[in-house]
Amino acid sequence: YIEQVLSRIMNLYKVGFSLLGCVITWRLIPELKESFIKINLSGKDFNKINKPVVPESMGIICATVYLICLFLFIPFPFMEWFTDKGEFLSAMLSLQSMVLLGFVDDLFDIRWRYKLLLPTIASIPLLMVYYVNFGETHIVLPIPLRFLFGKYIDLGINGVEIGQSLIIAISIVINDLLFLNGSDPAVEAHLFSLYFIIPFIGVSLGLFMHNWYPSRVFVGDTYCYFAGMTFAVVGILAHFSKTMILFFIPQIFNFAYSVPQLFKLVECPRHRMPNKVKLQKPLNLPTLLSLKIFSTFGLIKITKNDVGSNLDYIEVNNFTLLNLILLKFGPMNERTLTICVLILQVLSSFLAFFIRYRLVHLFYEKQY
Amino acid sequence: YIEQVLSRIMNLYKVGFSLLGCVITWRLIPELKESFIKINLSGKDFNKINKPVVPESMGIICATVYLICLFLFIPFPFMEWFTDKGEFLSAMLSLQSMVLLGFVDDLFDIRWRYKLLLPTIASIPLLMVYYVNFGETHIVLPIPLRFLFGKYIDLGINGVEIGQSLIIAISIVINDLLFLNGSDPAVEAHLFSLYFIIPFIGVSLGLFMHNWYPSRVFVGDTYCYFAGMTFAVVGILAHFSKTMILFFIPQIFNFAYSVPQLFKLVECPRHRMPNKVKLQKPLNLPTLLSLKIFSTFGLIKITKNDVGSNLDYIEVNNFTLLNLILLKFGPMNERTLTICVLILQVLSSFLAFFIRYRLVHLFYEKQY
Ligand SMILES: [Mg+2]
Ligand SMILES: [Mg+2]
Repeated sequence: YIEQVLSRIMNLYKVGFSLLGCVITWRLIPELKESFIKINLSGKDFNKINKPVVPESMGIICATVYLICLFLFIPFPFMEWFTDKGEFLSAMLSLQSMVLLGFVDDLFDIRWRYKLLLPTIASIPLLMVYYVNFGETHIVLPIPLRFLFGKYIDLGINGVEIGQSLIIAISIVINDLLFLNGSDPAVEAHLFSLYFIIPFIGVSLGLFMHNWYPSRVFVGDTYCYFAGMTFAVVGILAHFSKTMILFFIPQIFNFAYSVPQLFKLVECPRHRMPNKVKLQKPLNLPTLLSLKIFSTFGLIKITKNDVGSNLDYIEVNNFTLLNLILLKFGPMNERTLTICVLILQVLSSFLAFFIRYRLVHLFYEKQY
Repeated sequence: YIEQVLSRIMNLYKVGFSLLGCVITWRLIPELKESFIKINLSGKDFNKINKPVVPESMGIICATVYLICLFLFIPFPFMEWFTDKGEFLSAMLSLQSMVLLGFVDDLFDIRWRYKLLLPTIASIPLLMVYYVNFGETHIVLPIPLRFLFGKYIDLGINGVEIGQSLIIAISIVINDLLFLNGSDPAVEAHLFSLYFIIPFIGVSLGLFMHNWYPSRVFVGDTYCYFAGMTFAVVGILAHFSKTMILFFIPQIFNFAYSVPQLFKLVECPRHRMPNKVKLQKPLNLPTLLSLKIFSTFGLIKITKNDVGSNLDYIEVNNFTLLNLILLKFGPMNERTLTICVLILQVLSSFLAFFIRYRLVHLFYEKQY
């Protein structure tokens, strides 16, 4: 019985810290945003009429508050079994590495090929400690998650990255709570997950309030890396990486959909917003092929390519989930578009739970 | 006997990594310095005739390479007793926090009163884990060390910060080696210290080669915080914080000497280089008092304060060790000045060893 009371105190502690984290993040951002603009850490909001200058990389504030919250968990008596094995500490170390590198990326705009290296470097501490303690299983799977966020996806639409992250985080909490009731051996792992996710929701919410339409701040690569790494850490150390991946259905779809642009088969502008891409003729074979496949499935719409026309280019929408939504549901304003994307994310979380708890035996052999 | 062989392999491993770290740092800096200048992370070298623009904050490259070196130590079989207690991991976490915050300081020029908070935040993980594992002893002492480096001391003279750090680091290695021969119970702690210090020497050397007169890069607050935190971590976790402090005699002297300027009793320009400070009359009492005391000991020289003159200000040298050297030994060029400071640092290390191994019983009760 005492254990139950203590565990309840622990939960209060977590929730309290997260509320505090939320408030601190929310109050700190307006205080500090001028300093970011002063050193040119800012971007123009192209989707607004007057294109206001908005501070970038606010993820660093959010992530720093988060890390301090986690620091303060360390001496908690129940944390001993985490710190003993070094899991909690190595997870924090990896997270912080990712934040540091993400911030450096925001500052220097690191080239795509080096960018792929960053998450690898940042995950060294986690993988090393994991390897020392448990051997090698369950590691490889969630690594690609970290690439799914990041600028190539959604930058430019107010509130999308954080909104999606929040929905995924809430799904994880629900999933954790489903395990905490029983006397399942996975309880410990899911408690671990809650330690990381609840404060994450707190600080993200604090940032979300400034990033929601109309954005007064942008989150930067820093936030995307930070969020991606938080999910990777939780997936690996709480041993539910397969379930985790199910929450990323829209991101995985978006990544697969983006492949032609990521690999330069189709030209990729810096911001892939509603404007169209022009492709000079003649097109080479892989480009033609990918255009053919995608248009067969109705995933892209080629405009201005009349057979009779004399145009020496064809025009096509950008290959992102956002553009696909615009394609299917017609033009809409930025706010509505964001809400659409978030509803899609919620629906896909329902789908994930359905797959995980109804169809699980078809997909995985193990129960977690 | 096998243990001895393995320990030798470990040492080779450490030294190998450090050489690698040195080479990587040395080669990486010229590659990346253009990017730093592009985002205005640069400063003018006021001590050169043509005042060239030199990239700032190269400490971040040095520190990142260092942290990656440490990451790669984790799976080493002998590291288990470090990771088990979380010491190694929490030390890295604190170090990395300091690097992140130092870099942020370089970018935003954080105000002095907030600056004092940074090392406190960064040392939370270390202190927490230390508290969980060992209780509270041996902690408070080395904290002030971290303030001794940093911009208020030596910025602007090529090679001084790194040179001093290298001499301190080498002194620590010598001190560690003195303990490794015997079967002292402190062997473990000193091995721990070597794990941190040897790669630190490596990466610092790589940066030193670019920072030596004439500097092609500046090290930034990032390096100063990084170095300070490395020494603090080693001092705390290897339990020789008192010996450590002895290696900081010139820094401590400089700090005490700087007090009137740090606390604004005497005006403090941003760069306290050989130019003089003008103090408007009338002077208030604390200022007068500190000028009086310092000039009594011959530590400052008041120029232009003839009783008969009509000047409404007095002129005095800046309160730093560098200016004191110029005062005592006459004008010299930047390179000679740097060498003088470094010789002073070496001499004070000799003094430290003398105090530690000859006079120790007068100072400390315990032998370490
Ligand atoms: Mg970027
Ligand atoms: Mg600064």
